Amino acid sequence: MIRFISGGVCAPKGFRASGIHCGIRKNKQKRDLAMILADVPCAAAAIYTTNLVKGAPLYVTKDNLANGRAQAVICNSGNANTCNRNGIEVAEKTCKIVAETAGIDPSDVIVASTGVIGLPLDITPISEGMEKLYGSLSYGGSSQAGEAIMTTDTIKKEVAVSFTAGGKQCAIGGIAKGSGMIHPNMATMLVFLTTDVAISAEMLHEAILSDAADTFNMVSVDGDTSTNDMLCVMASGLAGNAPITEKNEDYAAFKEALHAVTDALCVLIAKDGEGATRLIECNVTGAPTHADAVKAAKGVVTSSLLKAAIFGADANWGRVLCALGYSGADIDPCKVDVSFASRAGEICVCRGGYGVDFSEENAKTILSENEIKINVNLGSGTECATARGCDLTYDYVRINGDYRS
Amino acid sequence: MIRFISGGVCAPKGFRASGIHCGIRKNKQKRDLAMILADVPCAAAAIYTTNLVKGAPLYVTKDNLANGRAQAVICNSGNANTCNRNGIEVAEKTCKIVAETAGIDPSDVIVASTGVIGLPLDITPISEGMEKLYGSLSYGGSSQAGEAIMTTDTIKKEVAVSFTAGGKQCAIGGIAKGSGMIHPNMATMLVFLTTDVAISAEMLHEAILSDAADTFNMVSVDGDTSTNDMLCVMASGLAGNAPITEKNEDYAAFKEALHAVTDALCVLIAKDGEGATRLIECNVTGAPTHADAVKAAKGVVTSSLLKAAIFGADANWGRVLCALGYSGADIDPCKVDVSFASRAGEICVCRGGYGVDFSEENAKTILSENEIKINVNLGSGTECATARGCDLTYDYVRINGDYRS
Repeated sequence: MIRFISGGVCAPKGFRASGIHCGIRKNKQKRDLAMILADVPCAAAAIYTTNLVKGAPLYVTKDNLANGRAQAVICNSGNANTCNRNGIEVAEKTCKIVAETAGIDPSDVIVASTGVIGLPLDITPISEGMEKLYGSLSYGGSSQAGEAIMTTDTIKKEVAVSFTAGGKQCAIGGIAKGSGMIHPNMATMLVFLTTDVAISAEMLHEAILSDAADTFNMVSVDGDTSTNDMLCVMASGLAGNAPITEKNEDYAAFKEALHAVTDALCVLIAKDGEGATRLIECNVTGAPTHADAVKAAKGVVTSSLLKAAIFGADANWGRVLCALGYSGADIDPCKVDVSFASRAGEICVCRGGYGVDFSEENAKTILSENEIKINVNLGSGTECATARGCDLTYDYVRINGDYRS
Repeated sequence: MIRFISGGVCAPKGFRASGIHCGIRKNKQKRDLAMILADVPCAAAAIYTTNLVKGAPLYVTKDNLANGRAQAVICNSGNANTCNRNGIEVAEKTCKIVAETAGIDPSDVIVASTGVIGLPLDITPISEGMEKLYGSLSYGGSSQAGEAIMTTDTIKKEVAVSFTAGGKQCAIGGIAKGSGMIHPNMATMLVFLTTDVAISAEMLHEAILSDAADTFNMVSVDGDTSTNDMLCVMASGLAGNAPITEKNEDYAAFKEALHAVTDALCVLIAKDGEGATRLIECNVTGAPTHADAVKAAKGVVTSSLLKAAIFGADANWGRVLCALGYSGADIDPCKVDVSFASRAGEICVCRGGYGVDFSEENAKTILSENEIKINVNLGSGTECATARGCDLTYDYVRINGDYRS
């Protein structure tokens, strides 16, 4: 049984974490350097952005994870260390400093950065802050780490669950950041997961790859796929279960628990989209293929027009049809049903591709809630998919019109 | 020699036009029904939206243009006549009313609608207003027609040129509407063109198809491809040139003049994007293939993040790199140069994929103009492309948060 617990990345056995202000950001109130350190070397895996322009830390992390092993995560906010001439050098130096301070191997460090693209990242504050960061690590420090990776995020994204595998009590925890530059195309944000399950690096990779297709790759805030994002996981094995090395029952239990964590993080990310006032969830059913369901659901949550209509609590379902029509999904407009739902109720607005009479007043009440479901039945099959996003608001424009200042 | 002239769709010989308020819109100050009537049956061609959800008028127009002939355009604003059970019936009835009033064949009518999707379109105001509309047609009425097709447009889009083909003085005129729900994927707006050139329907079709690939299909306001849009052209032949039936010198002259009109209309559409304060033009050079150049240029003008940065006059070139990276174009980040330009000057911000030192003050001055060029050299070939769009502003959100009200 999967149970949500507190503790974030420190919920699994064997992980300490912390986050401090080291000086990359000007604002001294804002933590800007996070670390997660495992007590033992972990099996580890990661997946990365599909953007052809990639942050320097991704190249270094990819190299370091080639052996499927890691023991620490280091991540700064305030600077993406991307499109900088000395980016690789700075990322490698960061790993070296972590390794020396923590007494581990530099190739066991996962390094990540998030923030402005194209500004040289000064190693000095990282180097000078490392002792303090290391000294502040604790088995209850997930929140500080979660805070230190935030950029325009307004809420900290931290989730953990407990579950059973191989008769042992296990846990998975995660922290994430992501608010803008979020669009389906692995990976779309920074996500650091920890677990105490004993599992091989290969199975870990397999698990996050297949899970992300239905979770992080189905979240869109603004259609912009970032250059820096990655999802990584470290497994300490301290739960004491028989190591998972194949797709058996324990793997299934792990996958299910993993999904509980990633799904919850996705909701937090979509809800906290830059400037967002409402979470939008598009549930597509009745698609001829899964790929069609995915395209249709993503198309709806990505439409700027629909997102602006939801901001205005306007039941402008024509924009849902419009988005479905250009989404690339194989649809027959004459078979499409659409309804809007929230905790205030559900209202059918389109049946068989045509509008139906509905109460604008009821629709307004439903759309005035802060979690909106758009349910689409394509009427052409049995496949389904869910995508999540948020409304498009004045604040998205404000935040992004002036990000670097 | 191509010369810009006044007169819009009435500039070519043999076309009358008008626009009236017939009552589809509540606001009596707003014209909502436009008509263009040719003195003689014309060779005609059209291209349509690629959205799978298509407005009813498009189906009727497509049928009517099967024989390559038309004599009138009728277009209402305020209602898209899309996703309505009786949409086809209403569009056909509209053609019939036009035909009876004007004494032409119903199959020679091009019918179009623009406005809200999914609201039944009442034929009554069209039927009752037709006599008045027909009576008000004039050889100087292009502006009224141009006004009557506007929705959220803030400026009327009307262009005409004169040129010479086969030794005869010819003209091409056009009106267009388009402000939101604009994204490259023919067609992305309503464009009605007239010409007095004698040319076959086949060559007309060929001309608009190839021209649109570089003009209307390269404009994006918000990434939403509309359900209703079409570009159509009627050629009266009254210029008296030897009919163009093949790709000869006269065809080339026609194509060049056509491009002058469509290019000017594109600038007007991009500039008048919903809520826009700045026109953005992305010029991509050095691409390995034309398709890569197109993807790269479209990717940049479509990025919400970049559009918001331009609104804020923020030289956040990292977002240009980011957009190029996920655009689908084949790029080598290490070879990319980027500069921002406007009438205030040009400033290089990225060379070989890395940031260069530049004066933020100069950049701000350049980006504070209302027509911004983003020049991208991919450094990987000789192909180029230009895409146009606009900034993302508070007003885009305001307009679309409350469109139906």
